Amino acid sequence: MMRELKVELGERSYPIYIGEGLLNDASSYFAKHGISAKSPLLIITDEHVAPHYLDALVQNLSAGGFQAASAVVPAGESSKSLQMLEGLVTKALEAGLDRKSAIVALGGGVVGDLAGYVAASYMRGVKFVQIPTTILAHDSSVGGKVAVNHPLAKNIIGAFHQPEFVLYDLKTLQSLPPRDVAGGLSEVVKHGLIWDAEFVAWCDANAAKLLSLDPEALGYALYKGCGVKANVVSQDEKENSLRAILNLGHTIGHALEAVAGYNELQHGEAISIGMIGSAKLGVRYGAPQEVYTVTKRVLERCGLPVVLPRHFDVDAVMSAMMHDKKFAEGTMVFIVPTAIGKVEIKSDVPVDWVREIVEELKLEVQR
Amino acid sequence: MMRELKVELGERSYPIYIGEGLLNDASSYFAKHGISAKSPLLIITDEHVAPHYLDALVQNLSAGGFQAASAVVPAGESSKSLQMLEGLVTKALEAGLDRKSAIVALGGGVVGDLAGYVAASYMRGVKFVQIPTTILAHDSSVGGKVAVNHPLAKNIIGAFHQPEFVLYDLKTLQSLPPRDVAGGLSEVVKHGLIWDAEFVAWCDANAAKLLSLDPEALGYALYKGCGVKANVVSQDEKENSLRAILNLGHTIGHALEAVAGYNELQHGEAISIGMIGSAKLGVRYGAPQEVYTVTKRVLERCGLPVVLPRHFDVDAVMSAMMHDKKFAEGTMVFIVPTAIGKVEIKSDVPVDWVREIVEELKLEVQR
Ligand SMILES: NC(=O)c1ccc[n+]([C@@H]2O[C@H](COP(=O)([O-])OP(=O)(O)OC[C@H]3O[C@@H](n4cnc5c(N)ncnc54)[C@H](O)[C@@H]3O)[C@@H](O)[C@H]2O)c1
Ligand SMILES: NC(=O)c1ccc[n+]([C@@H]2O[C@H](COP(=O)([O-])OP(=O)(O)OC[C@H]3O[C@@H](n4cnc5c(N)ncnc54)[C@H](O)[C@@H]3O)[C@@H](O)[C@H]2O)c1
Ligand SMILES: [Zn+2]
Ligand SMILES: [Zn+2]
Repeated sequence: MMRELKVELGERSYPIYIGEGLLNDASSYFAKHGISAKSPLLIITDEHVAPHYLDALVQNLSAGGFQAASAVVPAGESSKSLQMLEGLVTKALEAGLDRKSAIVALGGGVVGDLAGYVAASYMRGVKFVQIPTTILAHDSSVGGKVAVNHPLAKNIIGAFHQPEFVLYDLKTLQSLPPRDVAGGLSEVVKHGLIWDAEFVAWCDANAAKLLSLDPEALGYALYKGCGVKANVVSQDEKENSLRAILNLGHTIGHALEAVAGYNELQHGEAISIGMIGSAKLGVRYGAPQEVYTVTKRVLERCGLPVVLPRHFDVDAVMSAMMHDKKFAEGTMVFIVPTAIGKVEIKSDVPVDWVREIVEELKLEVQR
Repeated sequence: MMRELKVELGERSYPIYIGEGLLNDASSYFAKHGISAKSPLLIITDEHVAPHYLDALVQNLSAGGFQAASAVVPAGESSKSLQMLEGLVTKALEAGLDRKSAIVALGGGVVGDLAGYVAASYMRGVKFVQIPTTILAHDSSVGGKVAVNHPLAKNIIGAFHQPEFVLYDLKTLQSLPPRDVAGGLSEVVKHGLIWDAEFVAWCDANAAKLLSLDPEALGYALYKGCGVKANVVSQDEKENSLRAILNLGHTIGHALEAVAGYNELQHGEAISIGMIGSAKLGVRYGAPQEVYTVTKRVLERCGLPVVLPRHFDVDAVMSAMMHDKKFAEGTMVFIVPTAIGKVEIKSDVPVDWVREIVEELKLEVQR
């Protein structure tokens, strides 16, 4: 079964194809979307993904008449750098990429963000195709945010650059390490929590199938997750207002990642704990208790942490949030649930409340 | 006298203000264009420009309630690099620039291209203001092309990022070295040659005033030059077709720059010789002889070289053009004048003709 979803962005609209084995048909998607066979392509991937899928993709594209060079970067966040951009531009020049060429991301969110920024910058912008191979990358496949990191800040150097199309082959997810499966589901659940109560209930009921990588369940979950994000992004491409709701759980989550040094907790795990914090905040503001109980249950069922390990220092977590503009005045901006599937942007959450909630997160009953 | 020109690009339209002493009024232009006084600005300039104009600008902005940090980069093309981008992003982060901040370019085309790319990339794009201080920068102040260089290719990493407004203070041009005056006039004349015969005649008659930096003449010339470019760019923002005519003289010019090692000939000088070559090509294709004589006379009067120094190796010049797509098949794409003020894009110019013309350029009577 093949699902198709359109991300509506006027002239920059594009489809996301989700299905099993789509990679075997890659070249026909490229042709269908007007990618030029006369100009060389550059596939960017990482060292974990390349051994599984790169050869098959190159061969399929060659058989379809495309000329595809490839570049394999080290796996992990550190590849999102300006140094890597420079190296990839060298590759692109050597392979003869011109203004009609496309850059292809084959990999997770790291490869997607990096390759997307190469595509946005090379010759001031060439076509971009995304072939996501992680669950988390369903998030980065919608909205066109691409970026590399700076030693002082994540994702600070980037662009908005929408892909021509996204090809999500569910088969590629079979090789994902279990921790990346759960981590990716965290953002799937987030998309339910901000927009779609029914989908949250579905995740709650189907978590086991998702964790076992059942293709039908996975296809549906990615379709729904991408759909919510597409809805939000269509209404606010450049993050002027609504798009901020996508940050549910991310204020606390980012602080935890920073304090843990990006190793102990990966992103999906950190925002899982962050979403528990947001749910608690929601209840304080008067949301029904189930906002907390359901959020906690569905995240637990998806194999995600919902308590803050006891050794985390609350002061350190709080200082990691201090860059928030209004922190000094004693308040913060937070995305707060009002019900399952509904959130609002609160711009005057007392910093004291946040501290109390971080403390509570440590006191949650550990599994 | 203050001249104002609108660059028409739909939502991204912006004005260019040209006049004497506008820098003394900088903060009111910033306020008028909705630049936020709550968010810090970053002024990027170079070491030649800073001693003349940086303090005055910072003070004027401060007096107007703006908070302006500044960064001074080394003068010259080598500052257009990813390393410099990284350093400037460090500055921006340290100065606390946020998504409502603006990056200000105070300088020539190098500073404009670099600062513009910082503005395009920082936080995926912040506001950009251009304060050009060279004549050549009238060219880069229209059209939103921003970029840095890669060791293997100029301007290959960049974006389209339009400024909020351009503030051209003619007083800043008084400190320009004579060679940069003439070099900048080369692009002014080019804008006449591709679009406006009357303006070419005006340049011919007023070259001496321009070379002596007469403010009234300069203001008019920059207004007309920007106007032609604005016309072209409005019709073809992303260089799909028409915008190519702006490359008059640039195919040979770039080759000469490459062979000369970017020192002996500066850009304006190289394209002056290139435009003589294009005029010769035009005459071969049947344009009236005056295309050649007038082109040559006006460029000479502007203090520009119109012959190729004898030591240039024709083979080397030709190989520097070989990256042209159709070179191997024996033809090239050229912008060719059909009359003064009119050009056409010829996509099948015999490579042999180009070689003959480069040879002739060496045989021109040296002044
Ligand atoms: N642009 C956006 O809107 C957006 C949104 C969310 C996240 N992101 C970015 O995404 C990144 C995180 O994404 P991610 O979790 O996919 O990271 P990732 O790309 O690093 O992938 C996680 C790990 O899984 C490996 N991997 C990927 N696919 C595999 C497969 N099919 N089989 C086996 N191993 C595989 C990778 O090599 C890596 O080790 C971050 O850099 C984040 O900033 C961007
Ligand atoms: N973006 C575009 O559309 C576009 C168009 C044309 C050229 N360019 C770029 O512009 C650059 C060339 O521009 P440029 O000639 O202005 O170069 P530049 O910025 O290097 O300036 C030339 C020299 O003059 C000095 N200078 C600048 N203003 C001065 C002043 N008022 N007084 C004294 N000295 C001053 C500079 O320090 C430098 O040494 C190239 O990098 C080229 O690629 C871009
Ligand atoms: Zn996230
Ligand atoms: Zn030029």
